[in-house]
Amino acid sequence: MYGLMMDRPLLISSLLTHAESQHGEREIVSRRVEGDIHRTTYRELGQRARQLAHALAALGIAQGERVATLAWNGYRHLELYYAVSGSGAVLHTLNPRLHPDQLAWIVNHAEDQVLCFDMTFLPLVEAIVSRVPTVRHFVAMTDRAHMPTESGIPNLICYEDWVNAHEPDFDWPELDERTASSLCYTSGTTGNPKGVLYSHRSTLLHSYAAALPDSLDCAGSDTILPVVPMFHVNAWGLPYIACMVGAKLVFPGPQLDGPSLYDLFEAEGVTLSAGVPTVWQGLLNHVDGQGLAFSTMRRTIVGGSACPPAMLRAFQQRHQVQVLHAWGMTETSPLGTSGVLKAAHQALPEAAREAVQLKQGRAVFGVEMKIIDAQGVALAHDGRTSGELMVRGPWIASGYFRSDSAVVHGWFPTGDVATIDADGFMQITDRSKDVIKSGGEWISSIDIENIAMGHPAVAMAACIAARHPKWDERPLLVVVKKPGAEVSRDALLQSFEGRIAKWWMPDDVIFVDSIPLGATGKMQKSVLRDAYQDHLVNATP
Amino acid sequence: MYGLMMDRPLLISSLLTHAESQHGEREIVSRRVEGDIHRTTYRELGQRARQLAHALAALGIAQGERVATLAWNGYRHLELYYAVSGSGAVLHTLNPRLHPDQLAWIVNHAEDQVLCFDMTFLPLVEAIVSRVPTVRHFVAMTDRAHMPTESGIPNLICYEDWVNAHEPDFDWPELDERTASSLCYTSGTTGNPKGVLYSHRSTLLHSYAAALPDSLDCAGSDTILPVVPMFHVNAWGLPYIACMVGAKLVFPGPQLDGPSLYDLFEAEGVTLSAGVPTVWQGLLNHVDGQGLAFSTMRRTIVGGSACPPAMLRAFQQRHQVQVLHAWGMTETSPLGTSGVLKAAHQALPEAAREAVQLKQGRAVFGVEMKIIDAQGVALAHDGRTSGELMVRGPWIASGYFRSDSAVVHGWFPTGDVATIDADGFMQITDRSKDVIKSGGEWISSIDIENIAMGHPAVAMAACIAARHPKWDERPLLVVVKKPGAEVSRDALLQSFEGRIAKWWMPDDVIFVDSIPLGATGKMQKSVLRDAYQDHLVNATP
Repeated sequence: MYGLMMDRPLLISSLLTHAESQHGEREIVSRRVEGDIHRTTYRELGQRARQLAHALAALGIAQGERVATLAWNGYRHLELYYAVSGSGAVLHTLNPRLHPDQLAWIVNHAEDQVLCFDMTFLPLVEAIVSRVPTVRHFVAMTDRAHMPTESGIPNLICYEDWVNAHEPDFDWPELDERTASSLCYTSGTTGNPKGVLYSHRSTLLHSYAAALPDSLDCAGSDTILPVVPMFHVNAWGLPYIACMVGAKLVFPGPQLDGPSLYDLFEAEGVTLSAGVPTVWQGLLNHVDGQGLAFSTMRRTIVGGSACPPAMLRAFQQRHQVQVLHAWGMTETSPLGTSGVLKAAHQALPEAAREAVQLKQGRAVFGVEMKIIDAQGVALAHDGRTSGELMVRGPWIASGYFRSDSAVVHGWFPTGDVATIDADGFMQITDRSKDVIKSGGEWISSIDIENIAMGHPAVAMAACIAARHPKWDERPLLVVVKKPGAEVSRDALLQSFEGRIAKWWMPDDVIFVDSIPLGATGKMQKSVLRDAYQDHLVNATP
Repeated sequence: MYGLMMDRPLLISSLLTHAESQHGEREIVSRRVEGDIHRTTYRELGQRARQLAHALAALGIAQGERVATLAWNGYRHLELYYAVSGSGAVLHTLNPRLHPDQLAWIVNHAEDQVLCFDMTFLPLVEAIVSRVPTVRHFVAMTDRAHMPTESGIPNLICYEDWVNAHEPDFDWPELDERTASSLCYTSGTTGNPKGVLYSHRSTLLHSYAAALPDSLDCAGSDTILPVVPMFHVNAWGLPYIACMVGAKLVFPGPQLDGPSLYDLFEAEGVTLSAGVPTVWQGLLNHVDGQGLAFSTMRRTIVGGSACPPAMLRAFQQRHQVQVLHAWGMTETSPLGTSGVLKAAHQALPEAAREAVQLKQGRAVFGVEMKIIDAQGVALAHDGRTSGELMVRGPWIASGYFRSDSAVVHGWFPTGDVATIDADGFMQITDRSKDVIKSGGEWISSIDIENIAMGHPAVAMAACIAARHPKWDERPLLVVVKKPGAEVSRDALLQSFEGRIAKWWMPDDVIFVDSIPLGATGKMQKSVLRDAYQDHLVNATP
């Protein structure tokens, strides 16, 4: 028997109409590519998004077709977010930091029909224009005055002319809430990029969960500045959440350096921001170097990679800015966990509270998590036992666009190895492809690398699994010494004594001149494994 | 094209499993019918709810069948909330304040199969037992020691024995999220009661929206005491929200007087509570009369009827307890609006801020509102124009159980007359059946009554529509004078001068000895209309 409740679909367009009707006067402030500050409101956003929906229809874009963007965080990008998804097409946010070859591959795989880009990326578009035959229309996200006098792009459309040619009387269609709304490719370290295809339903449920007090805690009185790019998992959902709650939005455009961000934070009264550790380090360097202070910031969300303890302390103790550590992936929309302390943690000493905050956090409601062993058996949530992290929920990917299923027995395998404690706090201890499986037990490569990196003579260290006749795998440490520094194998291994379990001790150390790094700056441990996986077999008598 | 996100249903059982896995140790404290304090945890709640689900199955309760409760706010009632809905049956919360005839009518209409009741209500159940033939099993919500030695109820089951006879290994079924989950009858002033049938989907979406910072603002660090009964629109959703966020729950049982509530607030560190104005008045009388203070309360939610200005001031200014004014109905799950101030309001003077807070608030995300005139045309959101309030959304009723559709052109007519301002704040000015339609314009009966009630000689006042040959309807004031007080018709009308528009002035005053009140203490203005609707026609020459 069904309940007798209205069968209203969860649609992205309803976020916009809500913001228009309740927060029409609330500001959206953008630093433009040109460097100036642009100010608009939710009322105007709604109007222009409806003009833009007409403009898309005029180009013949059908429901389900992909409209790509190559753009910074800004108001025009936000208009595209709502106009494209709201009208039933799919917003495909491209990552401009990728190599042109990879970008062209993704555009072709997605079969994008339109490509809208900030002027910054004109050279990038010119580099791929001849290789993306599905793209029927290119749109420069600028006004007539800033259009390039000549470009290698045929029939280049001027965004402002395109929008202004249409009336703002568009009626958003009542779509099935499972309709695809946006597409974001994730670039793994191996294989081709894979497209994660979000739906209206997943986006709205994610927005509700992410705005909760124990998640990102977003209110109408907040001024939110998403540093995290709108091409990176929809800026962690903040462009949607801001409409849901009526927060003032501040977009930094291309200027993500410390001084530019700080000036914007102070000028616009930003209360909440979100970004990766490297961005925050730049901001802190500027603020602390100049002896400045934050006058309105109350909370910063750190995600993308683990928050260093010194950063947590700098924000919380020196600047009274609360740090929220969060974890997620492109496949998880992205919010999976949030590191808000529980009531019981408040009584702990500072250091113990910090240790909890430095974990990746507990699952937001809607996401289920478990850790499993190699046989798929669920492991204890005791904060010590580690296993492969599996997640499921209505905003977790079930598959990839025009590619494989993403699930194993109904769960998404994150590829992370983690512990979960009795309070539900998850801590990532390794990537599953990097963990060392020794005699049926797991050894965290990251823990060993962190200790090695603490040695004064070590510039870089990778711990990899080497095959072993008795234990299957044993840890092998690959080390680059600092210029001019010296340390012997035995002295280095001695520095591990008392800091790890005896059976975690690397079997050997290999000194190398360099360790290969990938495009995102991460160590390519797979290359090291290829080179050294038989090192212990050969060495064992 | 559909998105590629997991097709996970929104289920009430997931609230419980979330609370168990993340907040297992968090407390649920109840004042029992016996007067003692009982303490349990979410872990134990989960375990007992699963035992209870087995117990329901053992009685042969099928999915969709109704299990009724007659119970105060307490842990056993909470176990029934999760066990009944979680296993696919429908939790039917009965209002023990109704007359036995009405209760029997409702049980028969719902075809309840099981009736679980607190011992307080044994006489009530005995009064209806012979008249509710669909009820196959009666369960006394107590332990063996407190079972009645004899009762007129055949095969009366002892709740604790029933639960403890089963194992806690129940697997919650994966239901369609539109499955009916709970049923609550609304008793209008006319006609038979009507059943509002909630679904798992509507309950979960309502929980997400209601827990947001700008709605009820519920976090894991909160200790929530719902004074609003669990038989009154699911205690405004708080039993679900508490599991979602992991808040400590405190249940007051039957003792809702000021001293009992205050003691529980202080003993358990309550931070957030919710109830109707009359309950808060009792609490404030006690606290202020004894010169006490609240040491942990941060917020109180006032709903059910309008919050008087003096109450708002007492909480906020005298006790530093934030008041949240909210509006909703049984048909709206119930949260429709919340009166959280916007950033722009913070700069207003105290009195102006209070005036905004005294409005019913703005629609929470998920609820759409509009006001319409008699022809169904949408009216301006200017804070002055009033019209019938229409709402829609995924937790708004589409119909009544075994009865009529609830919607008109896709919207639910609330029966309230309201204004909506440019900030989205809605203010109820009247009930649509009470509003006076004079020459095509509407006059608020409530505004006129409030002014009349402010006169020192007036004990009670009702303003009703009287038929009028020229204006269709004109306001007629019906007044009960205070014992020993005197005031003439002309003197009373003179007191309205300058406080309302001239054309709002009542055409006449009728002094009566008493005004009839309904079961819920509200004036029965329909009785007055029947008696006096032709008063002006007869009086007009």
